[in-house]
Amino acid sequence: MSDIYRKRLDTLQDSLNHNGFDACLIMQEENRRYLSGFTGEDNSVDESSGALIIGPKGLILATDSRFELHATHEAPLFEIHVYKKGLDKDIPELFDRVGATRVAFEETRVSVGRFNMFTKALNEKGSTVELVPHEDMTAPIRAIKSADEINIMREALTIAEAAFSAVKGRLVPGLSEKAIAWEMEKEMRTRGADGLSFPTIVASGPNAALPHAVPGDRTVNPGEPLLIDWGSRYNGYCSDSTRTVVLGTPCDTFKRVFDTLFEAQALAIDAIKDGASGKAVDAVARQFIEKTFPDGFGHGLGHGVGLEIHEAPRLSYLKDHTLKAGMVVTVEPGIYLPEWGGIRLENMVLVTENGAEVLNTLDYHDHVVAI
Amino acid sequence: MSDIYRKRLDTLQDSLNHNGFDACLIMQEENRRYLSGFTGEDNSVDESSGALIIGPKGLILATDSRFELHATHEAPLFEIHVYKKGLDKDIPELFDRVGATRVAFEETRVSVGRFNMFTKALNEKGSTVELVPHEDMTAPIRAIKSADEINIMREALTIAEAAFSAVKGRLVPGLSEKAIAWEMEKEMRTRGADGLSFPTIVASGPNAALPHAVPGDRTVNPGEPLLIDWGSRYNGYCSDSTRTVVLGTPCDTFKRVFDTLFEAQALAIDAIKDGASGKAVDAVARQFIEKTFPDGFGHGLGHGVGLEIHEAPRLSYLKDHTLKAGMVVTVEPGIYLPEWGGIRLENMVLVTENGAEVLNTLDYHDHVVAI
Repeated sequence: MSDIYRKRLDTLQDSLNHNGFDACLIMQEENRRYLSGFTGEDNSVDESSGALIIGPKGLILATDSRFELHATHEAPLFEIHVYKKGLDKDIPELFDRVGATRVAFEETRVSVGRFNMFTKALNEKGSTVELVPHEDMTAPIRAIKSADEINIMREALTIAEAAFSAVKGRLVPGLSEKAIAWEMEKEMRTRGADGLSFPTIVASGPNAALPHAVPGDRTVNPGEPLLIDWGSRYNGYCSDSTRTVVLGTPCDTFKRVFDTLFEAQALAIDAIKDGASGKAVDAVARQFIEKTFPDGFGHGLGHGVGLEIHEAPRLSYLKDHTLKAGMVVTVEPGIYLPEWGGIRLENMVLVTENGAEVLNTLDYHDHVVAI
Repeated sequence: MSDIYRKRLDTLQDSLNHNGFDACLIMQEENRRYLSGFTGEDNSVDESSGALIIGPKGLILATDSRFELHATHEAPLFEIHVYKKGLDKDIPELFDRVGATRVAFEETRVSVGRFNMFTKALNEKGSTVELVPHEDMTAPIRAIKSADEINIMREALTIAEAAFSAVKGRLVPGLSEKAIAWEMEKEMRTRGADGLSFPTIVASGPNAALPHAVPGDRTVNPGEPLLIDWGSRYNGYCSDSTRTVVLGTPCDTFKRVFDTLFEAQALAIDAIKDGASGKAVDAVARQFIEKTFPDGFGHGLGHGVGLEIHEAPRLSYLKDHTLKAGMVVTVEPGIYLPEWGGIRLENMVLVTENGAEVLNTLDYHDHVVAI
């Protein structure tokens, strides 16, 4: 196991040096886990279970006494430092110990308040260490998954798909969105998921026109779209899928929208391979959809998935990322028609040298639920 | 309903003026909800569902299109502004619109990266608005609960206690900590909780010596401590309780530790009233425990509970807060003996003019579970 972390740390060290740093402070939970193995979770923005301090002369995992045992067990490459009065008090000494002079930190994870505490502590000790905000240098490393990571993600997806199949078999008109979401959760948890990768979206009828609907008390009627967007977390890794089903007979709108999305998704997946542009893949689906539904598709086509539910790269019209073999991305075109509702189809796709492998195994052709 | 929010906003405005500000930016999820009614949740540190911009000439809730409908419905006192390319792009105009010149923001909730984006946008527009980090000015207002808030918290606690009683009735040796935690969650969710207020702690035997143990595969044995620390969330508000039970006959250590804590908790609760010092209340329990177990009690005695599981005030030896009528705090002395295990007893207590009211209704005297 240590070899895996050693390799990840070497890649990060190269990236640091390339960007003019000799050290970094890692506070983002998933980065911390990815680089060290330590699974401690942060329960809120200002409650941290620890930080990695990575420098030319050492690797330190700083945490508090609650996590000492776990940290020691999970992160053998790191020296465990237990702080008593907060990380900021000890940080000057810890930077010294790893030989840091110019330290990158994750600018999206460190609050202004915490940064000011760090700066104050460094000044008080007369430290000359420079603490520099930087975008996340671990993200591009995490974006490329190893064979082991892909296997874990397949497992997460297997649990999620089995849960969906079980719940689909019990769908009847009159169930509330909330009740369906809870059934989905129970099925995932009892099948071995650590938890959900995000709160399950269950949106029926007109609610399905909201891409991020929150399940409510509305009950499902025959003939209308029932959109379920869900994922399980397994060994820390997320799955993310969406299916839209209909109880009874789908109307003509349902059929037209569904067929358009099915085709758009297939075209986009055909365009995915190592070296492809995320923006270009998004455009393939978008242009196809806009021929029939000019204003129907408002969000990006997809995103990377891994330890986080949303991570690098993006398949988006806003920003371009180059796809690389080993990336796992969602391909999730959707069409939303206010009042009527919406349909979204989402699969997880592994980018390969010459193309793409769809990781989902659920068939789309059984989206009509007999009632 | 609007009157409640109006009153909260007036109190905040007073606090702003008192601190030399004419406006503030609210990004902390629970503060946003408390001041506006908007329930949108932030799924991660850098994914925000919106911000309040509060100034002398207006109240704005800025959010993205996903949340527009909810925001409009839930926050009638606020003008809803939908940003397309991120909050930072629009913030100079929004500050202008509310007449802001010196704006406080929550220093623990705004990341360095986001702050730099705000600053850049303000500079680009030649704005003279000052954006100043400040500790959370909403926290002291939220600490004092209204009668309505207390009723909601009683409801959260009722759900949580009913779940505990149900699970306790099914406890048998051989159940794993994880399985017990999942039973607790199911019972809370099916009894109407929105969710958990934090991941349930179930720690058996030696694991109970870790105040923040994560439930694992260890199975419960007769005679050892089984510590359960759990809470439900209802209408956004948290409950937080701990009980430590034993299957079969408790050993002498169990009895001694339990009796000491029971007495320590009662003494501390007796010391609580409007005007009391949190540090002094902590000392009452601490000194009593240390007479028998000098190193047993490592953490603070308690904390405020409300929309957040940990909020102002603290009952702690580190920092002093004055208790006021309407605050709801936990009183949770614990004794932890490495190798053997630990016991913690935690009740929620409402501070009143002349004393304290224990909100929990579960009895401690049935902590021995027959097997």
